Amino acid sequence: MSDWRSTPCVERHKEFLENLITTLIDSIFESVSRENPVLRWREPGHLQDIINLNLQEEPRNQDCLLDVATKVFKYSVKTGHPYFMNQLFSGLDPYGLAGQWLTDVLNCSVYTYEVAPVLTLMESTVITKLLSMFYKEENGTTIGDGLFCPGGSFANGTAINLARFWFKKKIQYNKNIPSMRLVLFTSEDAHYSISKWGNVCDVEVVLIKTDDYGRMDVSDLRFNILEEQKKKNYPFCVTATAGTTVLGAFDPLIEIADTCQEFGMWLHVDAAWGGGLVFSKKHSVLLRGIQRADSILFNPHKLLAVPQQCSLLLCKHKSIFKEAHSKEAPYLFQKDKFYSRDLDVGDKYLQCGRRPDVLKFWFMWQAKGTSGFEKHVDHLMKLSALFKEEVEKRDGFKLVTEPCFINVCFWFIPPYLRIQNSVYDYKKRLNEVAPKLKEKMIKRGSLMINYQPLHKKPNFFRFVIQNSGVNIEDILYVFDEMENLGESM
Amino acid sequence: MSDWRSTPCVERHKEFLENLITTLIDSIFESVSRENPVLRWREPGHLQDIINLNLQEEPRNQDCLLDVATKVFKYSVKTGHPYFMNQLFSGLDPYGLAGQWLTDVLNCSVYTYEVAPVLTLMESTVITKLLSMFYKEENGTTIGDGLFCPGGSFANGTAINLARFWFKKKIQYNKNIPSMRLVLFTSEDAHYSISKWGNVCDVEVVLIKTDDYGRMDVSDLRFNILEEQKKKNYPFCVTATAGTTVLGAFDPLIEIADTCQEFGMWLHVDAAWGGGLVFSKKHSVLLRGIQRADSILFNPHKLLAVPQQCSLLLCKHKSIFKEAHSKEAPYLFQKDKFYSRDLDVGDKYLQCGRRPDVLKFWFMWQAKGTSGFEKHVDHLMKLSALFKEEVEKRDGFKLVTEPCFINVCFWFIPPYLRIQNSVYDYKKRLNEVAPKLKEKMIKRGSLMINYQPLHKKPNFFRFVIQNSGVNIEDILYVFDEMENLGESM
Repeated sequence: MSDWRSTPCVERHKEFLENLITTLIDSIFESVSRENPVLRWREPGHLQDIINLNLQEEPRNQDCLLDVATKVFKYSVKTGHPYFMNQLFSGLDPYGLAGQWLTDVLNCSVYTYEVAPVLTLMESTVITKLLSMFYKEENGTTIGDGLFCPGGSFANGTAINLARFWFKKKIQYNKNIPSMRLVLFTSEDAHYSISKWGNVCDVEVVLIKTDDYGRMDVSDLRFNILEEQKKKNYPFCVTATAGTTVLGAFDPLIEIADTCQEFGMWLHVDAAWGGGLVFSKKHSVLLRGIQRADSILFNPHKLLAVPQQCSLLLCKHKSIFKEAHSKEAPYLFQKDKFYSRDLDVGDKYLQCGRRPDVLKFWFMWQAKGTSGFEKHVDHLMKLSALFKEEVEKRDGFKLVTEPCFINVCFWFIPPYLRIQNSVYDYKKRLNEVAPKLKEKMIKRGSLMINYQPLHKKPNFFRFVIQNSGVNIEDILYVFDEMENLGESM
Repeated sequence: MSDWRSTPCVERHKEFLENLITTLIDSIFESVSRENPVLRWREPGHLQDIINLNLQEEPRNQDCLLDVATKVFKYSVKTGHPYFMNQLFSGLDPYGLAGQWLTDVLNCSVYTYEVAPVLTLMESTVITKLLSMFYKEENGTTIGDGLFCPGGSFANGTAINLARFWFKKKIQYNKNIPSMRLVLFTSEDAHYSISKWGNVCDVEVVLIKTDDYGRMDVSDLRFNILEEQKKKNYPFCVTATAGTTVLGAFDPLIEIADTCQEFGMWLHVDAAWGGGLVFSKKHSVLLRGIQRADSILFNPHKLLAVPQQCSLLLCKHKSIFKEAHSKEAPYLFQKDKFYSRDLDVGDKYLQCGRRPDVLKFWFMWQAKGTSGFEKHVDHLMKLSALFKEEVEKRDGFKLVTEPCFINVCFWFIPPYLRIQNSVYDYKKRLNEVAPKLKEKMIKRGSLMINYQPLHKKPNFFRFVIQNSGVNIEDILYVFDEMENLGESM
């Protein structure tokens, strides 16, 4: 077995890494140029012809590896391109990338101070700062604690588990009591992970109606809580959303918090998408009431454009993570360690080994400052407002609903449908427009923007941005390109 | 708002990334040299004095960022160092790192083919290959499917959720039937995540006795299944372990599979640590019977030394992921897409956004070939056997139990305890040795090796390796260094 650190090996490996990285750095910047496509669409069979993905018995040589790495990059979607507006993430911040690269070099897991001293303290610094931003400090003392999670769905699931733990403790739950159904409430526009993880945790999930703007209807919430109580079920948790996935709506947090208080329920706020507003003095008003949440999910990888993935679950109750999750595994959290066991954060997590997601966020924060994130958020909000105005100005574009956040939902109405909006199959025909237009964009590689139906509304487009590099010309480009592609439909 | 892609910005960012990466590449190779320490231990207060972790209102300049990145690296533990033997992961494969760096540049989430075409096909290639290795093919057809998971604990949790779903479907579970306790069985030496996720899924977990080698006692398993049946509870799942965390034991899979078949239970095998043996013709015999598992957890980031994290949950039942997890979110998995929805893998996951963990593994596989992983595993097994022989040879070292895998568990007995092993507080005093010796290693930065108690056994050390760069001199070094540090105790 060759030792990869022997001198000839070291030189060969160094050279390989340097060659690869030089190519990558050039490619990144070139690939997000507006002259280059967002993607190069290929059918799966064709793509497999271009890149030989098969796993072989024998090694491939370095030239071959460089070649295949180049192809993997070339045929992957350029999520950092200004015309990539397809998901609730985009952009590629150079400092975020630097933090990610450094993380990879550390190749570590954050559970004990002895293996991850710097990252442990860094996580604590970021969590403390975010707690002080979301939950205003009381007498200068930070309340609560936080977890880094592999994505928002997992964080929502963890919150449901905590809410159940808290509720069972409160009512002194006895597991020998026959069948007791715990019920969680969330809006019909909430993220689907709530229902998914409701299944995992084996609790009922009741979906509450939303209004025209996508906000939870609090009177419907109250009605449903009372209904469940009549059935002798146990309402234990409401998960509200601050920035829904499609419409970007904010549930009325204060009224929901009042309702939770009245019925003795846990309030979880899914601010995965909207949470980044906490950095903006101007726009954080949309989060009003969030400090009353028992737990808050916030994804810096969404609005703040931190690289994938960076999700946090913040919680007002400082000791509940340990109470609910701790198993004190004696092979990791030895009781006779020479340093304080409080420094080992792993025991409060549902994960054991855990990839560090803090460094890229922390590094970006150092590079931009808190003020940089504020400028970023304000810039995106301003562009979204401009986008909305443009929808209202242009023929053939129509708002689905009045937006209050980044999301601007709209229909593109092609010329042949503009004059016949009273025909009997108008809705059906409008529903067919978005998928067709999307296909054209993707095949041309000129733009990626998402579409979906919602309730009884036919397919519409959802404009979103997270990339600071997007400017007003790009906004106009989106309209021009859609008109361009839609012309011939 | 400055556009980071405007020319002066591009040049500044490029230069920064190039400077950082050049420093990093040099540092990696230097830091794993045997002349350099595994870690530079600092108390938290001291570390915070050295690295200013605070988050500021204003940005830091590039020089300052480079400086702080260098310090983060310097004071982090060198998990790629040959003397880092502290966890079930170690090493830093240059091709794995290259794959990780490339992943970061793609900054993507794997849920739809349209945003992750290459990675989708790559995941499928790796999963299909692993399925064919773990579950022998029947008539050339691969059976089953797989998921990439953020760590082994999460994968174990997912398996419990699937087992429950399968069982409820089988018995045509009616949720209106009062209190029905589902019971899962695992050994007392199994990973703690089984109990942790048993809580999340709200199922009972019964711990089964192990024998002297750490293997599940199948007669105790049968006894407990029958006991639970008597209580009118529902035994639904056994999770067996292939390579336990501490002793490295392999549960008797064939007898356990027979038991599961007899009682109509799901068999999950946690092969997070031992699964890599599937690559070795010589040693895969330890996994005999694994093809009978309904689900298998395998962590390439452990034995195969793929960078953190790379975990897979493989499952024999091809369609169960979708059946159990699907929510068909209409904003992601549109029914009127222009390409086949079967290409979108996200709906079968418990996560929504998901960081790609396949590329680093796939890239290493290309670089080493299947044969390279085999050599790697065989090399590690050979060194472990040598380590065990050395324990038996040397005064003051004593095996805890006869090993069969990588783990060699042993006591270091300092000179003052060697002659008095009949004194009344011998066990207590032996128990104090490992923590003290560990403190000395860490403070000197010369070696990291884990210790723990187990059942009634006082603290002992656990030797493990995953790093191909470790050689026979390193094995001897471990003994010499422990003797050296233990001399003065």
